[in-house]
This record gives sequence, structure tokens and C-alpha cells, in this order.
Amino acid sequence: MTIDLDVDHSSPSDGLSTVQRRSAVLEELVHRDPGRFRVLTGDRPTGRLHLGHYFGTLHNRVRLQNLGVEMLVIIADYQVLTDRDVADRLTEHVEDLVLDYLAVGVDPQRATIFTHSAIPALNQLLLPFLSLITVAELGRNPTVKEEIAQSQQSSVSGLMFTYPAHQAADILFCKANLVPVGQDQLPHLEVTRTIARRFNSRYGGGLEIFPEPDALLSAAPLLLGTDGTKMSKSRGNAIVLASSADETARSIRSAKTDSHRHISYEPATRPEVSSLVLLAALCLGRDPRQVAEDLGGRGAAALKETVTEAVNAYLAPIRERRALYAQDRGHIRKVLRDGNERAAAIANTTLTEVRSTMNALY
Amino acid sequence: MTIDLDVDHSSPSDGLSTVQRRSAVLEELVHRDPGRFRVLTGDRPTGRLHLGHYFGTLHNRVRLQNLGVEMLVIIADYQVLTDRDVADRLTEHVEDLVLDYLAVGVDPQRATIFTHSAIPALNQLLLPFLSLITVAELGRNPTVKEEIAQSQQSSVSGLMFTYPAHQAADILFCKANLVPVGQDQLPHLEVTRTIARRFNSRYGGGLEIFPEPDALLSAAPLLLGTDGTKMSKSRGNAIVLASSADETARSIRSAKTDSHRHISYEPATRPEVSSLVLLAALCLGRDPRQVAEDLGGRGAAALKETVTEAVNAYLAPIRERRALYAQDRGHIRKVLRDGNERAAAIANTTLTEVRSTMNALY
Repeated sequence: MTIDLDVDHSSPSDGLSTVQRRSAVLEELVHRDPGRFRVLTGDRPTGRLHLGHYFGTLHNRVRLQNLGVEMLVIIADYQVLTDRDVADRLTEHVEDLVLDYLAVGVDPQRATIFTHSAIPALNQLLLPFLSLITVAELGRNPTVKEEIAQSQQSSVSGLMFTYPAHQAADILFCKANLVPVGQDQLPHLEVTRTIARRFNSRYGGGLEIFPEPDALLSAAPLLLGTDGTKMSKSRGNAIVLASSADETARSIRSAKTDSHRHISYEPATRPEVSSLVLLAALCLGRDPRQVAEDLGGRGAAALKETVTEAVNAYLAPIRERRALYAQDRGHIRKVLRDGNERAAAIANTTLTEVRSTMNALY
Repeated sequence: MTIDLDVDHSSPSDGLSTVQRRSAVLEELVHRDPGRFRVLTGDRPTGRLHLGHYFGTLHNRVRLQNLGVEMLVIIADYQVLTDRDVADRLTEHVEDLVLDYLAVGVDPQRATIFTHSAIPALNQLLLPFLSLITVAELGRNPTVKEEIAQSQQSSVSGLMFTYPAHQAADILFCKANLVPVGQDQLPHLEVTRTIARRFNSRYGGGLEIFPEPDALLSAAPLLLGTDGTKMSKSRGNAIVLASSADETARSIRSAKTDSHRHISYEPATRPEVSSLVLLAALCLGRDPRQVAEDLGGRGAAALKETVTEAVNAYLAPIRERRALYAQDRGHIRKVLRDGNERAAAIANTTLTEVRSTMNALY
């Protein structure tokens, strides 16, 4: 069964509702038979993770892992090469990422954490995959398009331009069949599905060498940063998982609210206050409307106090684990080495299969 | 010292004469101190090699090898992926290529013959290299441009579009510092030089991680096929190294000439006859003008007889060796396995250095 989510010709809402329905079915299947799924997720190593990452993706990853789904977590170090500031501190960023993973509960015994650059056989898939996609298709990808729009077309790097093919290699090298994504990532996944389909038909004689991975849409809650814009590392408005309880308190105290004393949960009209309410609710495992109702007329200061307490209580065990792991960098490196070894073994097997499919084993 | 062969803004003849002068100096250096050079050459495995290849490049490679230059010969199997007919018979084509190499005197003890697809660490260089080149620069490359002009822009594959970066990886993985090329290949080499320079400056802090390889311009004689157009496999007008003496005789007998009985060497005005004269001269190690003079008024039939004898005599030992090697496919495969092993070791060392330079060794 195939979703033909044609981002160019069909109405996006049609495609989206199909994916949403399918995603709901997949969610059921994951609960019933987690062993049939292999998930690929990951991050670019650009610094410490924050609450936006946590409730956006990390939480969901740990949930899937604990349900018994096999998971691979890629640290996409090649994707940050062109960012000079990040590239200069790459080792630190990568180790920070592993620390954050371990702290939130990713279990390196069950999940394979690995760095992109350490797996040559994964990267080699880029070559056959690039043969399966046209320049026009690469340029039509929304992320690439946005990049071209933002900078001058002429200055977009070949690395950025070919990004959809890299992502296909990241996902298909381990034959992941499930990819937790937000809506904005759907076009990327569609390129991966296209490449898998074309590979199977052009080189595999129709045999399924690569599965067409499905999107598991995760409803990422919209958490705003302390300045009322989207929470983001680069904006300096994020509550970082690794920060101390005091830093967190200070940060939340400085958060933007509005002039109404009565606290309510109305994301559309009161985004800043609602985001704080939502954050407390997520940490408390409660409904945001009830959290707001409880606060009633007690004003922004009380709201912030509630949020601070909720966040710090929620993060306390995560921070404790993080501090513990941070004392043993040798362990962090071992986690990476083991993960890289496992990922390399998977990649080598896939590459051999690919080369054999293409009659390129001599 | 740097040649700035800007294919877009400077006059091509200026750039060319610089490269020619430099090439002459390099040729002297090769004779004086061959040990300081490492050469990368290679072919796409599209079928058996012919006399155009032989006098165009193979002869020169063997010459360089025998002078004591270290040589790596890449069989660029990923570059033929999109040609369905070729891809279906890839193993056969690759083995034919190795047979031709051994037959003409490439010595696998001294030269490393390897297949592109077998060296993941080489291919991984594509990622950092793509970060060093813009979409505009890729699209400006003459070969890519021609491809775009010939097909519809939209149908050019990502593999073709990124070809200049692949070639950079092929050359730089082994830090080749000398690349024998024809004039038409100069823009490709310039991309490789640019990538080497940018890598050294962006990631290497100015240290020379990669040498900027020099072009060794080889004056490839223009041999026409039997139909009077450029000798080419796909046109079916080529004299294949592996063909028999009889096939060669038939082929030369059918070659196009002109209506003048007097044989002369005038490539501009009598291209077909002159090409035959040149072929005989190359095989006999003589000046084509003298060959023509000797033939005088004896006409095309005598010319063809002379060419046939010269070619068959020249190719006899090559064909004998080829037949011998063809009986032992196990040896061919061993040559490839050994070459792949050696190339992989070189590539792994380079990749480790590259990852270390980029702070991506964890």
C-alpha cells in the first residue's frame, strides 16, 4: 500500500489527512506488534537540547523505544559542516547530544546512537540514490527551496542541495520502516519513499530491497521561548535540559506574558501565557485548561512559579542522570563507539546487498 | 604556485597555454624524479577498449608507470549506473576493462586497479566536498552544462549534476598530484583544485591536507573511426583491442577514405585518409608524413593494407597477453580484490585524516 503524497499537484490538506489517518493506524500497530518496526530518528549536533526538543521528539522516541520498537538515532554531523561556529566545537556538541539522549532515557543497549560521518557505507548509498532523483526534484524540495530563497541561489552548497538524498540514505541504510516526523518533514520523507520505490523497480527488478518508510506524525506541542517566539537554540530563548534549577527559574521569570491577570489557555489569542500553561501541563501530565483554571486570577507571577516548579521537578531526575553521565566521558565515547560499530555492520550489509543488486560485486 | 584557470572569465587560450607550459615542466620532472608523483586515471566500464583509448590514454599510463610513477586506476562503475544496458552487464564490463589493462601492460604489482563502488571511504569524501562547492559552480561545469543542454534540464540526475565533486573525491582520496588529461577535462580538474584549496583553507587551517593536483596534458592523437567520425564504442566504428586480426582487417578494409589516389597526411583537408596514415604511423613508431610519402600513389587499398599490417603487428603481443589472461578469470578477480584492498587502505587513512581535521573523530 502506497500513499501518493504528491506535494506538487495534490492539495496538501488531502495528503495530510491521509497521512494522519495512516499514522493513527500505525500507532495502533506499534502498540500491538512493536517488533515489526524499525525507527530512524536523529538530530544535528548544534548544541544542548531544550524543552522544545524534549516534548517535540525526545519524549516520543523514548516512548517508542520503551514500547519495544527498534530505534536508530543518527547524529547528523555532516549537516553542520558549513556552520563554522558549530563545526569548530563538533566533538563537544556530539558528546552533549549523547549526554542528553542518555539523560532523557534513550537506552544504548536497545537504541543505536551513531554519528553520520563514522559510517562510510551509509554515505556511499548517496551515489546510487542520486542517480534516482533529478535536479528538478532536488530543487523542488521545500527545505532546499527555502534555503535558495534565503541566500542567493548561487551560494547554496552542493551539500544542502542534495540534502533530500542524504536523508534517504540515513533512513534507508538501516531499512527503517517508520520515521517520526512533524508535518514540515513530510516532503523529505516523500523523497525517501520515491527513492526506495525507484531503487526497487530500477535495480531490484521490483523486489523490495528497501521498504518505503511510513511517517509517524507526532503532534509536537508548540512551545514558545521566553521571548514569545518559537523556542530555538539560536534565539537564546530556550530552556535547556542541562541547565540548573536556578537558571531555569531565572529564565522562566523573564518570560514574556501579557497584561491580563486572569490566566487562561487560549493559544490563538494569548500565545505567550498559553505556552507557559502548556509547559506546566506537559510536565505535570495534566490538561492545560485545568492548569489555567487552577491558577485563575493569581496572575503571571503565580503562573511562572507553577511552571518553574513543574519544569524543575520534571527535569530533576533527567538532570541528575545527566550530571552522573557527564562525569564519565569515557562512557559517552563507548556508547558512540558501540553505536557506530552496530550501525556500520548494518550499513555494510545493506551496501553489499545494494552492490549485489546492481551487479557491482566483482 | 597556483594556476587560476577561470573557465568563465579569462580567455581559454590564455589558461591553456599556461597549463601547457606547466605540463611540459611536469613532464621533465616526471623523468627526473618520478617518485614524487602519484597519478590517478581511470575509465567508465562501458565495454572493451579500442585504439582511440589506447593511443589516447592507455599508452601514456603505461609509459608513466614504467618511468616509476605511482599510479591508481579507477574503474568508475557508479558513473554508468544510469545507462541501463551497461549496468546490466557491469561485471562483464569491469572484467573486460581489467583484461585490457593487463594486456596493454598495466602492472597490478605497481599500479592499483580498483572499482569505485568498492571503496566507501572514498565515496564519503563526497559529503565534505559538496559542502565546499555551490550549486552555481556545479551547474557551470561544461560536462554538466552539456548534459543539461542535451536532455531536458529537469531530467538530469543528481548523480550527473554532482559529477565534478565525485571526480574530486576520486582524485583526492589518494592525494594524487598528477592527472593526465585531455584539454576537455581541464575544467573538471579545476573544480578538484578548487575543492582541495577550499578544504585546506576552511578545515585545515591552511595546512595542505590535499594537494592541488596538476594536469599532465596528453596530446591525444585524433583517431577517426571507420566511418570517418570520432572513434567511439557507441558508434560501432572502433577498432577494439580485443578483436581478432581478421576482424581488424575487415574493419579497416571497410574504412571510409576519399577519391584521391595519392596518399598524403593532411588532417585538416583529408581527415579520413590522414587518420589511417596516423594510425599506421603510431603503430610503426614513424612520422605520419613519411608513411604517407612511402605510400605515394599506391592508393587507398595499399594504405589499408599497410594500416592493417601495422595494427595487427602492434596489437599481436597485446592480444596474446589478453587471451592468456582471459583464461584465468580468477586472476582478474584477484587483481581487483587486491587493488580494492589497497585503495580502501589509502581511502580509510585519508578519511580518518579528514574527519580528524574536521573534529569529527569521537
